[in-house]
Amino acid sequence: MPRCHWRVAARSAIVDPMEITPSPPPVCLADFAALARTVLPPPVWDYVDGGSGTEVTLGHNRAALDRVGVLPRMLTGVATPSLRTRLLGREYAMPVGVAPMAYQRLVHPDGEPALAAAAGAAGVPYLASILGSTPIEQVTATGAEVWFQLYWLRERALVVDLLARVRDAGCRALVVTVDVPVLGRRRRDLRNAFRLPPELVAANLPGGRDDLAHGGTPGVTQVTVDSGAAFAPALSWADLRWLGEHCDLPLIVKGLLDPVDAVRAAEAGAQAVVVSNHGGRQLDGAPASVTMLPEVVAAVGDRCEVLLDSGIRGGVDVLRALALGAAGVLVGRPMLWALASGGQAGAGTALALLADELRDALALAGCADPAAARQLRTVPMG
Amino acid sequence: MPRCHWRVAARSAIVDPMEITPSPPPVCLADFAALARTVLPPPVWDYVDGGSGTEVTLGHNRAALDRVGVLPRMLTGVATPSLRTRLLGREYAMPVGVAPMAYQRLVHPDGEPALAAAAGAAGVPYLASILGSTPIEQVTATGAEVWFQLYWLRERALVVDLLARVRDAGCRALVVTVDVPVLGRRRRDLRNAFRLPPELVAANLPGGRDDLAHGGTPGVTQVTVDSGAAFAPALSWADLRWLGEHCDLPLIVKGLLDPVDAVRAAEAGAQAVVVSNHGGRQLDGAPASVTMLPEVVAAVGDRCEVLLDSGIRGGVDVLRALALGAAGVLVGRPMLWALASGGQAGAGTALALLADELRDALALAGCADPAAARQLRTVPMG
Amino acid sequence: MPRCHWRVAARSAIVDPMEITPSPPPVCLADFAALARTVLPPPVWDYVDGGSGTEVTLGHNRAALDRVGVLPRMLTGVATPSLRTRLLGREYAMPVGVAPMAYQRLVHPDGEPALAAAAGAAGVPYLASILGSTPIEQVTATGAEVWFQLYWLRERALVVDLLARVRDAGCRALVVTVDVPVLGRRRRDLRNAFRLPPELVAANLPGGRDDLAHGGTPGVTQVTVDSGAAFAPALSWADLRWLGEHCDLPLIVKGLLDPVDAVRAAEAGAQAVVVSNHGGRQLDGAPASVTMLPEVVAAVGDRCEVLLDSGIRGGVDVLRALALGAAGVLVGRPMLWALASGGQAGAGTALALLADELRDALALAGCADPAAARQLRTVPMG
Amino acid sequence: MPRCHWRVAARSAIVDPMEITPSPPPVCLADFAALARTVLPPPVWDYVDGGSGTEVTLGHNRAALDRVGVLPRMLTGVATPSLRTRLLGREYAMPVGVAPMAYQRLVHPDGEPALAAAAGAAGVPYLASILGSTPIEQVTATGAEVWFQLYWLRERALVVDLLARVRDAGCRALVVTVDVPVLGRRRRDLRNAFRLPPELVAANLPGGRDDLAHGGTPGVTQVTVDSGAAFAPALSWADLRWLGEHCDLPLIVKGLLDPVDAVRAAEAGAQAVVVSNHGGRQLDGAPASVTMLPEVVAAVGDRCEVLLDSGIRGGVDVLRALALGAAGVLVGRPMLWALASGGQAGAGTALALLADELRDALALAGCADPAAARQLRTVPMG
Repeated sequence: MPRCHWRVAARSAIVDPMEITPSPPPVCLADFAALARTVLPPPVWDYVDGGSGTEVTLGHNRAALDRVGVLPRMLTGVATPSLRTRLLGREYAMPVGVAPMAYQRLVHPDGEPALAAAAGAAGVPYLASILGSTPIEQVTATGAEVWFQLYWLRERALVVDLLARVRDAGCRALVVTVDVPVLGRRRRDLRNAFRLPPELVAANLPGGRDDLAHGGTPGVTQVTVDSGAAFAPALSWADLRWLGEHCDLPLIVKGLLDPVDAVRAAEAGAQAVVVSNHGGRQLDGAPASVTMLPEVVAAVGDRCEVLLDSGIRGGVDVLRALALGAAGVLVGRPMLWALASGGQAGAGTALALLADELRDALALAGCADPAAARQLRTVPMG
Repeated sequence: MPRCHWRVAARSAIVDPMEITPSPPPVCLADFAALARTVLPPPVWDYVDGGSGTEVTLGHNRAALDRVGVLPRMLTGVATPSLRTRLLGREYAMPVGVAPMAYQRLVHPDGEPALAAAAGAAGVPYLASILGSTPIEQVTATGAEVWFQLYWLRERALVVDLLARVRDAGCRALVVTVDVPVLGRRRRDLRNAFRLPPELVAANLPGGRDDLAHGGTPGVTQVTVDSGAAFAPALSWADLRWLGEHCDLPLIVKGLLDPVDAVRAAEAGAQAVVVSNHGGRQLDGAPASVTMLPEVVAAVGDRCEVLLDSGIRGGVDVLRALALGAAGVLVGRPMLWALASGGQAGAGTALALLADELRDALALAGCADPAAARQLRTVPMG
Repeated sequence: MPRCHWRVAARSAIVDPMEITPSPPPVCLADFAALARTVLPPPVWDYVDGGSGTEVTLGHNRAALDRVGVLPRMLTGVATPSLRTRLLGREYAMPVGVAPMAYQRLVHPDGEPALAAAAGAAGVPYLASILGSTPIEQVTATGAEVWFQLYWLRERALVVDLLARVRDAGCRALVVTVDVPVLGRRRRDLRNAFRLPPELVAANLPGGRDDLAHGGTPGVTQVTVDSGAAFAPALSWADLRWLGEHCDLPLIVKGLLDPVDAVRAAEAGAQAVVVSNHGGRQLDGAPASVTMLPEVVAAVGDRCEVLLDSGIRGGVDVLRALALGAAGVLVGRPMLWALASGGQAGAGTALALLADELRDALALAGCADPAAARQLRTVPMG
Repeated sequence: MPRCHWRVAARSAIVDPMEITPSPPPVCLADFAALARTVLPPPVWDYVDGGSGTEVTLGHNRAALDRVGVLPRMLTGVATPSLRTRLLGREYAMPVGVAPMAYQRLVHPDGEPALAAAAGAAGVPYLASILGSTPIEQVTATGAEVWFQLYWLRERALVVDLLARVRDAGCRALVVTVDVPVLGRRRRDLRNAFRLPPELVAANLPGGRDDLAHGGTPGVTQVTVDSGAAFAPALSWADLRWLGEHCDLPLIVKGLLDPVDAVRAAEAGAQAVVVSNHGGRQLDGAPASVTMLPEVVAAVGDRCEVLLDSGIRGGVDVLRALALGAAGVLVGRPMLWALASGGQAGAGTALALLADELRDALALAGCADPAAARQLRTVPMG
């Protein structure tokens, strides 16, 4: 893994490079958190790590996953499981995508292209945030399979323009995030008076003007409410249907928890939904994503694919999601930890660890592949 | 926010003003607790903060709220939710009232009028305690919507006199507290041998003689049992009916947990009930208020309105209460924290924060207004 | 409260009397634990405080009580509740008895007579252990209502003799403990190599020879297994019936958890059963007593009275037991704490506190007396 | 207990013998953990103590056992319970076996023969791991009842040879471990870069070449996946049937959690199954073994015997397993703790303690023998 970038990039010398001793190699994704905490300025760490409100939903995400007992099957004749997975009609190396996250240059100067390249090398989709700090064309140029994540712009014409740009850049899918009518109140960011450094721009917005979106305070301002902001607040299912009709990419709706909403998304043209509470960053008090997953899977049936995010920290979590019926998962914060601490190489290591863990978990559960894992029985644990 | 009043008001110099460094602005109601703890003498803090007995019910109130998962709805077309709410036939700025709390000059020299004025400015009802340290007329003079809270006096003629005085002062409703046949045993107060300072009087009692009520030890003495005390202990449903007949203000019964009692209250003329365990200050071992809320709502149907108090600490808690069927909530301790640390301005800041949090929570849950929140589904969380 | 006895009685000066500062007056029974811990030598504290095995059942007892939510009723017209209770056909001042505990001179030189006198003054039964360190006649001479607790002697003739002696001494009931076929393995006692001081004798055993019972190591040796020991190990329901026929005192069976056993006890002549896991000191891994109480109450119906012990620490716990159907409770360790720290006066203070707490709890729950509390509804709390 | 062996055996002087003060005698199995932690190099301790992944399953094993409340029966006429138990048609001193564990010379130079001899002296079966650091013939030479544990070798001819060798050595049963298609990811071992010391060999593998199995890193390498490894990965029920036909020893299948798998094992010829998650060392996220035990017992009926392992730490745990229907249990880590801290004598002390605890637990529960314990009722505890 390369030397920590922050020694170069940090504007204020928060960490004295001389005091950093060589770290042992990470053995799990959580190890990257410890590394990232060392190199990131505390307010940036808080921005990445925090949730909204009392962070009760942030905690529920982990607690609920830990309570999912997966019942392994023995003597199934499985040698080395395959991780290959079809999502949205394309094949990927494992049932995992990199969750869309804003302003990745905030944690590492190589930003989005580094993380996308790592995802591409690992054979998994990279979900590029509309709030990326690098233009989408530079992200797709890495050769990764890129899904573009959209917050809806106020001016519908700009949406149309952006859809064309995204398609031309070679993105494979459009992910509409629906759980951000306003930003969740993230108390850590409020306490830190967290602001983006001026050199970071929302590179996918018209003219790169991130101030259109949130005036440089991603954790604080209500992105879509202020009249001057770029994002539309009062979206409806009719808007979603319009989007499906004006976009020839596969459509994914991200940020649902209610099975009724999932069915409506499928009926409005979504080929996949992502069951998510935005990693505990939006409605504090919402249930854990994994708590709602089985109901959503049952409700949508084969009308669309179901992905899960919020709280995934290792291969066993992927197995849990599969066993509860998900087609795959998105991994968020761990990828930022890895990017922060090691750039593209760090992210690659993290994805390789995740693949190793998932392969082992599948083998130990007696599953030849992710599809077999969806037949596993789960047992609630105290 | 003004400088801490206690620098002036404290009789003993517990806090050296020179040592107080400027506090960061509060980002949530809990921040006022930290501020209040700094400025209040420890026994006063304990009086405000404590519960009865082992404080197990005090703890249940929070734990039970944290386990209420609220399932948000997406793409409902909501831009900025309205918080406006009808309670008892009048419209308020949000579904929140300031809970009745005794002797508010104990925590800040401006006392009841300051908190009432903040409530008035925020457009929410202020519930004035019969044990206020300021005459009710000075409270209503702030222009706030005032609901008067009654502990029943032994002499029925005095009750009649007080009802007339309350009506003449312009109060909008009468709140009868029914869960204080005796005071709960508050161990912190007993340990501190807590007593009111002599200059504080029960300004609404005949002759301002608070000794009539409890001899200056609000947390300790059994208010209504001692033969010399002012309050009647053995109240019954017949007394409540008598009150309803002799009072032309809307009647609210506060301090019920049992659905059977709630129905009886409605049948005895109550236009609203407050599901409450008195903030964990009366029967230690009673269930959390929010645990009983759904049953009470189902039992009373449309016979009366149902409010909740005990444990509300933020906008998400209000959303939880609404989702479980409450028409609104009362907020107690956080308002004393804010009053203690910043007087009227502090209380105003707290109410503004609460409104901001509730507005965001409604938006994130896809609700156009509090009524819509009552249709949300809740999910128990581990 | 008198000065701590241990300054005189302690054989080794573990506590320097000069260093003891005046303690604040206890406000609840738990305060006596802190006092007792100060004055007792650590191995004696451990003997009193500890449970068997991993102490999981010891912990369950409290946790299960804390989860019993009691739903109070309002406006029931109750002024000052009465605590008076009929148990075994006699009236007592409250539904509480002092649990049988061995060798009370271990914690205070005044021992059994002091605790019995306090119970007598408080109007509650004192359960005298067969392993008392004072002859039963000196205990009944205090004027207390004494129930005699029996571990079954190997020689049946000695049992007959003892029954006569107990009756002649004026005991009001016979309590047969059935949950000690062997002593639980109390790891603290084993680690401390705890032994009785030589001056303590089992004053009710023939010739005062406590070595007959357990060779001076009450927490360690299997009392009834060793062939040389005084107690009979392999008791059966036939023995219990024989006892009922040879004893003209009311018979209480203490130490049951299983409803089936409770019914058999009633059928064998018991007028009361005590649902108890021996305060977590016998079978580690047994359920909490309060967990089994409702089933036992339902199973025995009106065939016999049901008492509860194990974990009672205050008036609210008594209310919980009553609400779950108990006729009363036994209180153990808190009485030893109070005896240790203040002799008879300390024990009297503890019982007065318990009565105050129970009176307040009944009033707050809307109950005129203990019988009314048995109609209360309980609500499980998370 | 003899002096700690590690003073002699340790290659690096991690523990200075001069600093070791005499330890108090162990009163429970957990005490041996503290002793072992003192004498073992930290990486060896971690290898013994750790689980896979986040160790959530490791924790579930204990938490789930602690929640099993066992309802004791009183007055059953039991004096001293018998512990004698029939397993696989042979009688043992108690319903306990020593779980198979690799490379026991890692924790004590006397290794497998010491532990086997202790088991033999205690009258319980010793399960010898195929990865033993002593040839099986030296283990059976101790006179213990030895059950041989098999990881399946890649070359079927070697399996046949090994079966003959095992039978000739006098082993009483063959235990096939089925939950190790790959090794669980044990993060502690990965962090410690744990490797076997070179002088340790897999003494039962052809030519003693442990590198065939895992290249000296038992906690790390995927034993059976690498093409060069000795163990076969993709086993099936057909292989198990083949084994049953080629082995005239009673067959035990170890490492099942799913009742469906247990039934298949019985149908394939297993005379017993061991419900086990490998002590939390294989699939992290698997349910606690004890959670699945009742279902497995119900599913197999009388088709085969059911044993439990994973988390057993004392006599009460054995009682819990019996009450839930197990015929017996295996005890793993505690035996290594005892071996590490005291060699054969230590292991003997541990087994004697376990027998004492179980005898007391049976007596306290009113059971004459292990079979009676299987009729006990269990009660879930919060």
